[in-house]
Amino acid sequence: MLTITFKNQNKHLYEEIYEQIKAQIIGNILKSGEKLPSKRKLSQQLSVSVNTVDSAYGQLVAEGYLEAVPKSGYFVCEIEPYFKRPDEDPGSRITRLEQKMMVDIDFSPNAVDEKLFPYEVFRKEFKTIFTEEEKDLLKLPPAQGSSELREALVDLLYRSRGVKCRSDQIIIGTGTDRMLETLGLIWGKEKLVILENPVYLKAYHIFKQIGNPVNSVDIDGKGIQIEPLKKFKDAAVYVTPSHQFPLGISMPIDRRIKLLNLANHQQSMYIIEDDYDSEFRYNERPLPSLKSIDENDRVIYMGTFSKSVAPSFRISYMVLPEDLKNRYLEIYEGIGSSVSTLEQKLLARFIASGQYEKHLNRMRKIYKEKHDFLNEALKKYQKKIKISGEKAGHHLLVSLKNGLDEDQMIKKALQQGVRVYPASSYFLTGIPDTFRATVILGFGSLSEEAISLGIKRLKIAWDL
Amino acid sequence: MLTITFKNQNKHLYEEIYEQIKAQIIGNILKSGEKLPSKRKLSQQLSVSVNTVDSAYGQLVAEGYLEAVPKSGYFVCEIEPYFKRPDEDPGSRITRLEQKMMVDIDFSPNAVDEKLFPYEVFRKEFKTIFTEEEKDLLKLPPAQGSSELREALVDLLYRSRGVKCRSDQIIIGTGTDRMLETLGLIWGKEKLVILENPVYLKAYHIFKQIGNPVNSVDIDGKGIQIEPLKKFKDAAVYVTPSHQFPLGISMPIDRRIKLLNLANHQQSMYIIEDDYDSEFRYNERPLPSLKSIDENDRVIYMGTFSKSVAPSFRISYMVLPEDLKNRYLEIYEGIGSSVSTLEQKLLARFIASGQYEKHLNRMRKIYKEKHDFLNEALKKYQKKIKISGEKAGHHLLVSLKNGLDEDQMIKKALQQGVRVYPASSYFLTGIPDTFRATVILGFGSLSEEAISLGIKRLKIAWDL
Repeated sequence: MLTITFKNQNKHLYEEIYEQIKAQIIGNILKSGEKLPSKRKLSQQLSVSVNTVDSAYGQLVAEGYLEAVPKSGYFVCEIEPYFKRPDEDPGSRITRLEQKMMVDIDFSPNAVDEKLFPYEVFRKEFKTIFTEEEKDLLKLPPAQGSSELREALVDLLYRSRGVKCRSDQIIIGTGTDRMLETLGLIWGKEKLVILENPVYLKAYHIFKQIGNPVNSVDIDGKGIQIEPLKKFKDAAVYVTPSHQFPLGISMPIDRRIKLLNLANHQQSMYIIEDDYDSEFRYNERPLPSLKSIDENDRVIYMGTFSKSVAPSFRISYMVLPEDLKNRYLEIYEGIGSSVSTLEQKLLARFIASGQYEKHLNRMRKIYKEKHDFLNEALKKYQKKIKISGEKAGHHLLVSLKNGLDEDQMIKKALQQGVRVYPASSYFLTGIPDTFRATVILGFGSLSEEAISLGIKRLKIAWDL
Repeated sequence: MLTITFKNQNKHLYEEIYEQIKAQIIGNILKSGEKLPSKRKLSQQLSVSVNTVDSAYGQLVAEGYLEAVPKSGYFVCEIEPYFKRPDEDPGSRITRLEQKMMVDIDFSPNAVDEKLFPYEVFRKEFKTIFTEEEKDLLKLPPAQGSSELREALVDLLYRSRGVKCRSDQIIIGTGTDRMLETLGLIWGKEKLVILENPVYLKAYHIFKQIGNPVNSVDIDGKGIQIEPLKKFKDAAVYVTPSHQFPLGISMPIDRRIKLLNLANHQQSMYIIEDDYDSEFRYNERPLPSLKSIDENDRVIYMGTFSKSVAPSFRISYMVLPEDLKNRYLEIYEGIGSSVSTLEQKLLARFIASGQYEKHLNRMRKIYKEKHDFLNEALKKYQKKIKISGEKAGHHLLVSLKNGLDEDQMIKKALQQGVRVYPASSYFLTGIPDTFRATVILGFGSLSEEAISLGIKRLKIAWDL
């Protein structure tokens, strides 16, 4: 049964109606198939114009919450209860709370330490590149990206990740999210996409948006499970084997080989290997990438410079199997790369000169120090907490055993001016019991002092 | 009936089979629904392995040319004969021919004069931007683009095109093509898209790729026709009113108002106004943009800096109606802009400082000189040719009246070392008689000497 109350005088009436109906559909108060009052009836009920109701209903139809059945009325659409809705952004609940608090320590898992950025190196490179003599500086970059950058990547990927590829298999893109979008467009919307659960949620929303059917397979201690994968045919499987996002598990080699064998056996299966932060392993050498042991061209290998250079440079890359590469070129050949020629040249020189790896070594050392510092600070309380995901990347996971749930952990932390992030929001299906009281603590941008202070406050907040 | 002949020893056998079958499907020699020989049978016929045929058939199935019906065999899919296929790239035929010729004068409609680029201004801006003190320089740019650039655009669009908008309605993108792709993703694949005919062909391929139903309406002397538009409901209409691409027609105000009225009347209709080269009108002031007279938020206004700055900077923008903007943010909020922070800052300063408009005035003057020079050079032969599209942009159209057709015009020009471009490839449906012998002559990158020499050679080639 629909109820509308006007609360916010600054909003348009139609917006209020729209938002309240939407909330009631998402909250399952209005059930799938339920008929809404006619526009005329609701407009009389609320004393607003029919046009106002029409705008609200129209928007809800456009967004797929309502269906307009001619001559019959408006009905609530079936919304998959299985997956989270796009509007349930992991951070949104927190953001609202945080507006009222003064948060000065943010354990964001996405932040990087800007003080490490090699400004001087980039300024020098710019000077040599941005001249009248520089070849192709003003030209549309080719669809796959500049050959200079792709060739620098061929060497880098071989040295650092054992990936053997030719530069014509590489596509330069503007970030992992938009590369996933491109994949969705080039393999067509019929392609079934299988995600790990829990998962990098944007991957889910991107493929849903494009219209790809999406399913998920739970991970166990070794990563994505193989048995449940077998029932899917002709699928693309998205995995993060180096450092599962967000749990931090590294997929052992036997699981890797099983996954590749399945793809080889099924032939039409692709594996997307998102190697997003393989650069940041601290206590052991990374396992060889899936791509490095892929003999049958089944693996789409992806990487990004968001964390190793800076998020402001929108540069990432993928190594495509032959068929997908051809498909990409068919579509984008005349359109050109989405990354500017200047930035491709800057990054190419940065890599080819060896400065990138030098910079990376320096960053790895500093992030390891931060990582170890946070890990040690947390270990003092290990009777009351469980720490996981602790071998790599820019965050740790902390589970509490004293009865507080995730929501309480986040709110109590905020009351102390500390922001931590929910692990639950990465689960597509129900949250397993072991993760009911788990939050994510990122350390990329925090100094040791800030980490130390943050943990002291969390001790109070969580009664450690 | 399928026939395969192996011609090219450098190609894989499977490639030859694949390409010949594909060509026969596109050429309608193999008809929709026709059954192909079994893999075994064809492999015996051609004395190749079953695997070879399997690869070729597999690729054709993957690309949608063939359908594999289990236990029955391979059948030719229905390929819309109405529209051109993506692989029929306008330039491809020419490229093959050109490989054998020495082309030294290229009348490309997409080239710009690189000598005009303000290197020094950009170098100075870079120096002030790329410092440790610059705010947000290393941060992920917000989904809509940097507010600095959007605010600079608000002013620029009002001054130059009468567009009144707020900065939160603007989205910064990496080129018109990818912005069209984004539109296709945010309004969903059910949205019917109507194109002008003839049209900027990439628009067609992009929407088809996403899965939007696409239709077209012929233009007349005033631009897209209104009557045939009326039969479509809930559509988005893509138009180039300032300077129709490729014909160069400018849509008069009465047609503009009719189009807006139709959109207002239908309510759910969007108009995409691609104002791609409104900066380059030479003999008269541009008409007000559709967006500037749009009182009902029906117009999506698009522009690009490809020609006014350089194609290597992948920066374009669109002004979105409120509902589409909200939809965009729902999807891309956490993903960020696809354009790097550095380049957004560079362009924002370039515009806000007034340097952009100074640069544009200089370019407009020089392009007008080139345009007038080419126009004059062609006018000598006006008994034998018809010149059109001559008020703006970077190209003219030349139609021949002496019996040569378009293909002959292009080939004979190539034999003289001159590259000209087919007008026919922009027509989605049949080519009207008046355009059977029409080519496009771009002048953006050519000096007066090159234009002069080019026309002398065309005189010989076309017997003017």
